[in-house]
Amino acid sequence: MDNFRVPIALLTDFGTRDYFVAAMKGTILKIAPTVQIIDITHDVAHQDVRSAAFILQACYRDFPEATVFVCVVDPGVGSSRRAIAVESANRVFVSPDNGLLSFLFDHETERAKIYELTDRSLFARDVSNTFHGRDVFAPVAAHIVAGVRVEEAGCPIIDPVRLHVPLPGRLDAEQIQGEIIHIDHFGNIVTNFLPNLLTREPIFEINGVMIKRFVAYYSEAEPGELASITGSAGFVEISCNLGSAAGVLKAKVGDKVILRNMRA
Amino acid sequence: MDNFRVPIALLTDFGTRDYFVAAMKGTILKIAPTVQIIDITHDVAHQDVRSAAFILQACYRDFPEATVFVCVVDPGVGSSRRAIAVESANRVFVSPDNGLLSFLFDHETERAKIYELTDRSLFARDVSNTFHGRDVFAPVAAHIVAGVRVEEAGCPIIDPVRLHVPLPGRLDAEQIQGEIIHIDHFGNIVTNFLPNLLTREPIFEINGVMIKRFVAYYSEAEPGELASITGSAGFVEISCNLGSAAGVLKAKVGDKVILRNMRA
Amino acid sequence: MDNFRVPIALLTDFGTRDYFVAAMKGTILKIAPTVQIIDITHDVAHQDVRSAAFILQACYRDFPEATVFVCVVDPGVGSSRRAIAVESANRVFVSPDNGLLSFLFDHETERAKIYELTDRSLFARDVSNTFHGRDVFAPVAAHIVAGVRVEEAGCPIIDPVRLHVPLPGRLDAEQIQGEIIHIDHFGNIVTNFLPNLLTREPIFEINGVMIKRFVAYYSEAEPGELASITGSAGFVEISCNLGSAAGVLKAKVGDKVILRNMRA
Repeated sequence: MDNFRVPIALLTDFGTRDYFVAAMKGTILKIAPTVQIIDITHDVAHQDVRSAAFILQACYRDFPEATVFVCVVDPGVGSSRRAIAVESANRVFVSPDNGLLSFLFDHETERAKIYELTDRSLFARDVSNTFHGRDVFAPVAAHIVAGVRVEEAGCPIIDPVRLHVPLPGRLDAEQIQGEIIHIDHFGNIVTNFLPNLLTREPIFEINGVMIKRFVAYYSEAEPGELASITGSAGFVEISCNLGSAAGVLKAKVGDKVILRNMRA
Repeated sequence: MDNFRVPIALLTDFGTRDYFVAAMKGTILKIAPTVQIIDITHDVAHQDVRSAAFILQACYRDFPEATVFVCVVDPGVGSSRRAIAVESANRVFVSPDNGLLSFLFDHETERAKIYELTDRSLFARDVSNTFHGRDVFAPVAAHIVAGVRVEEAGCPIIDPVRLHVPLPGRLDAEQIQGEIIHIDHFGNIVTNFLPNLLTREPIFEINGVMIKRFVAYYSEAEPGELASITGSAGFVEISCNLGSAAGVLKAKVGDKVILRNMRA
Repeated sequence: MDNFRVPIALLTDFGTRDYFVAAMKGTILKIAPTVQIIDITHDVAHQDVRSAAFILQACYRDFPEATVFVCVVDPGVGSSRRAIAVESANRVFVSPDNGLLSFLFDHETERAKIYELTDRSLFARDVSNTFHGRDVFAPVAAHIVAGVRVEEAGCPIIDPVRLHVPLPGRLDAEQIQGEIIHIDHFGNIVTNFLPNLLTREPIFEINGVMIKRFVAYYSEAEPGELASITGSAGFVEISCNLGSAAGVLKAKVGDKVILRNMRA
């Protein structure tokens, strides 16, 4: 029980200027003193479950097997919303039952095991109504890393909340409409188009602007030029070499993206 | 000396875009190579000792016993202000002597032991006049984690700087006036009222607005509705479900909060 | 191979709200499960290689020997720009070959060993064109911490990209012109003047304002007073006690700084 070779990864909308994240980390270290705690991010937009799901989906496979992920974007904290643990892809995820983890439920090669967290002996002694990151999710994750099996933490459930995930849809024979699902730190626009939809010369339209260039790497475009590219999260992105595509296009999450000239 | 099971936790106003925090962490790891270093926050407002004290007070008990806290908000760096270490609540705290730690001095069950850091052999070889986080506090903390006892690091003192902590005061038979001591990442307003002051139907007034709803959890209020609530730091907060109470009320730290209908 | 006593330190412009940094950390932990990962910063201005170099230069010596630094500011990712590893000052650095590490090349006491990273068996199985932080630099660093020697990772090169570093130059018998190389979190202005250039009463001019006071520590100046000081990164800085010198002087990186009354 002395060596914790598996990390705990945290994903929240708690920001980094309060005591929230520290309280979670301290709580974890009381139970699992030497576990390494990794921050995915704490800067998810307030209560934006969809954005948290995107970020988790983009990186969880990069973590070692058996990693325990603590994902807390939780507008319903203290209400009757359930707390869950999910076993999927040989990793463990704890979160409020609000759809944040639903992309894991129908994994390519396995079905996730989903549990409602019901064993209060794994929680803090006094559970507040406002901060389950500290009082429920952090201690449960630490106990799992310290050896508690997920199925000991709760009861199997079959009706978790599922997030509606928008998929691109065909407008007509020559156009597919998708949308912007994320804008990254550099202003790259992540769309919900998968690269396998593309022809060799795809044309995208966002907010009335046509993007006709498709590049293999950012600096293949001219400085300031807009181009589409296969991004590192597995989706097509619109980028602007040495600039911000989102800034140039005044684009935001949810905006429509139209693809022309798609694969026949 | 090879296993450092106790973490070092850092709390500063150094921000995260400079070399300051990295320099502290590298310095610690030179002395205690495998200690886990936890960031509480580095985003305390510039030189805001009171805010740092609030954040530390809200989370230090969540950390394991023997944790060493390095708390550096230090407008007086390089001057004759003292550097101190405090043993309190079975944990160790190092900081400039500017009041940041004074909430620890009269702990509920023990009296803190307070030392001026005087053993320069525990400091960096060359101590700058501008960065004692790197040159004094980080190495002292690392040496303590590595086995140096606090009383070896300095001399006991009895006159540390104390921070003035505002307490709510009675205005008349029906009103108590407190103030805003913190506004969190979500815009929740933390007051200096303790929950035991409240009746079942407390009414708060901030900036001329009455808050008549008291809730047990955030989403018990309607979306956009203001309500008072017992917050996770142990104080009464004013929140706005799915919104920012501070934004709605144009509230800032130090603003007055009036409580009516208090417990008889 | 079980104990990783040497940390990996990360320096990027990836920000902290995306999956980028987490993907790098997860990748590292798959290869070196218990290595401690330290963030230097991820808030380097977009693609600002010079700023990254300044921050690294200011803190790398504070880290233990054998630390592996992963420095990724990489506008040319996916193009033909090389990836390099540098052995210098008993530490290892991996980075795109864009000048970020060039301050290490002619170290005071040794010549750096510079290698192009060519052993693709140390990279991710599939290397993207957009994210070599995850696919090249993180895995190579982890393998080095896990025991791979730097010279096994690539081929020696002698023509790495070098960054042009501005040095102060004499304007006339009484004036030297330097420039602002960094503005820190507190608004302190870091110049490229070394302290050994100064007389006892140096006078600096920035944007038409004379700074006549030289202080040993910040609070030696009056509140709001501008003063020059020897900063913790080894350069002369202009500070404003309890304020922001950069704000007062409307100063930005690259602005000219004139020194009068210099050492004869």
